[in-house]
Amino acid sequence: MTAKILLFDVFGTVVDWRTSVAAHCADALPGDVDSYAFADRWRSLYQPSMEDVRSGAREFVRLDVLHLESLRTVLDEFGVHLPAEAVARLNTVWHRLTPWPDSVSGLSRLKSQFVIAPLSNGNISLLLDMAKNAGLPWDAILGAEPVRAYKPSPEAYLRTADILGVPPEHCMMVAAHNSDLDAARACGFQTAFIARPTEHGPSQTTDLIAESDWTYSVSSIAELASVLGC
Amino acid sequence: MTAKILLFDVFGTVVDWRTSVAAHCADALPGDVDSYAFADRWRSLYQPSMEDVRSGAREFVRLDVLHLESLRTVLDEFGVHLPAEAVARLNTVWHRLTPWPDSVSGLSRLKSQFVIAPLSNGNISLLLDMAKNAGLPWDAILGAEPVRAYKPSPEAYLRTADILGVPPEHCMMVAAHNSDLDAARACGFQTAFIARPTEHGPSQTTDLIAESDWTYSVSSIAELASVLGC
Repeated sequence: MTAKILLFDVFGTVVDWRTSVAAHCADALPGDVDSYAFADRWRSLYQPSMEDVRSGAREFVRLDVLHLESLRTVLDEFGVHLPAEAVARLNTVWHRLTPWPDSVSGLSRLKSQFVIAPLSNGNISLLLDMAKNAGLPWDAILGAEPVRAYKPSPEAYLRTADILGVPPEHCMMVAAHNSDLDAARACGFQTAFIARPTEHGPSQTTDLIAESDWTYSVSSIAELASVLGC
Repeated sequence: MTAKILLFDVFGTVVDWRTSVAAHCADALPGDVDSYAFADRWRSLYQPSMEDVRSGAREFVRLDVLHLESLRTVLDEFGVHLPAEAVARLNTVWHRLTPWPDSVSGLSRLKSQFVIAPLSNGNISLLLDMAKNAGLPWDAILGAEPVRAYKPSPEAYLRTADILGVPPEHCMMVAAHNSDLDAARACGFQTAFIARPTEHGPSQTTDLIAESDWTYSVSSIAELASVLGC
């Protein structure tokens, strides 16, 4: 049976975070800062920043908070000093990321036959602002904040299925990252891999291909919609 | 300043719970049961059922759970015996309530200029199923479950504003119940009263008119859209 609910990773799968963040950094930072290097370094602190929450050493805090802590670290590393207000404003760049060209139309097609929602580590206001800015037609805004757990912790997937009132096998995780799908499948979810070979730029080396026999493996959200008959 | 985020009460304000529940009860219960009396009695246990959670005597549980407990009580009172599966199915009637005639078009107009979301005591899957069934175009599904607090507890309003990353005065509570608006205003929200004089049937005696100087007072969601320039 095909899942009735499609849950999407967002950063990299639905939106092109790198190009968006670099563009905003180019505007906000001094001209001699390499904005792609800055964006990559900021993003490199993303997974480590959630580790203390995942391990239980730190109570759950929203991704906006973790992003801000990481941003301050990277600004220090790059020797950039900005007023606190400018730092706070730059931190909200993650609320305004640009979708991949196929995302909005693909999601709209899928919405006609499925419940579609983000299962992202982004917090609710981040995902909601992004959806309003970009026209992402989610049915609901789910993810780390309602379940107070960061992927790939099993709780992030299992509690989301519980909130939705369905067994895990009625859910399909859609992601551009094999590790996310691996964790979702271990929880009983169906899985769909979307190849995003330039998420990390032209010299990306990871997640170029499906590394397992996921339920579906496609090159865009539009192709997923076609495969699922939408 | 007008609020940027409109948060809606749902039962009675957006959907006509009484007619919907009575219709489903007429199908599910023996022919000699007065389906409107059954619906009214079930609904009468709604506010009391949340009291132990509000007081802290009971850990937060979803409205689906409280609805089921109340349903069992009412079935006993009416002397009706149904198989457990039929009881569980009847309990999901709250996931399939019919909107008032102005709701879908009014919300669609408001969505063009505001973030719109339910701030209901209904749980996420209840509100999501209802939205998919009825075409309610929410930007996000908020309410008691993400904040683990039932209106009119202040936490229900304040934590929702906090999730949204805005001060309470940037939010407007839209409801057909003066008590809901009273609690929201005490938390700093703007307020809009929608008159729903037949929510409780033709002999309704409460909430017939705005009982305070709410920010707006209108007779439908469509009129609210007009007043707000949408």
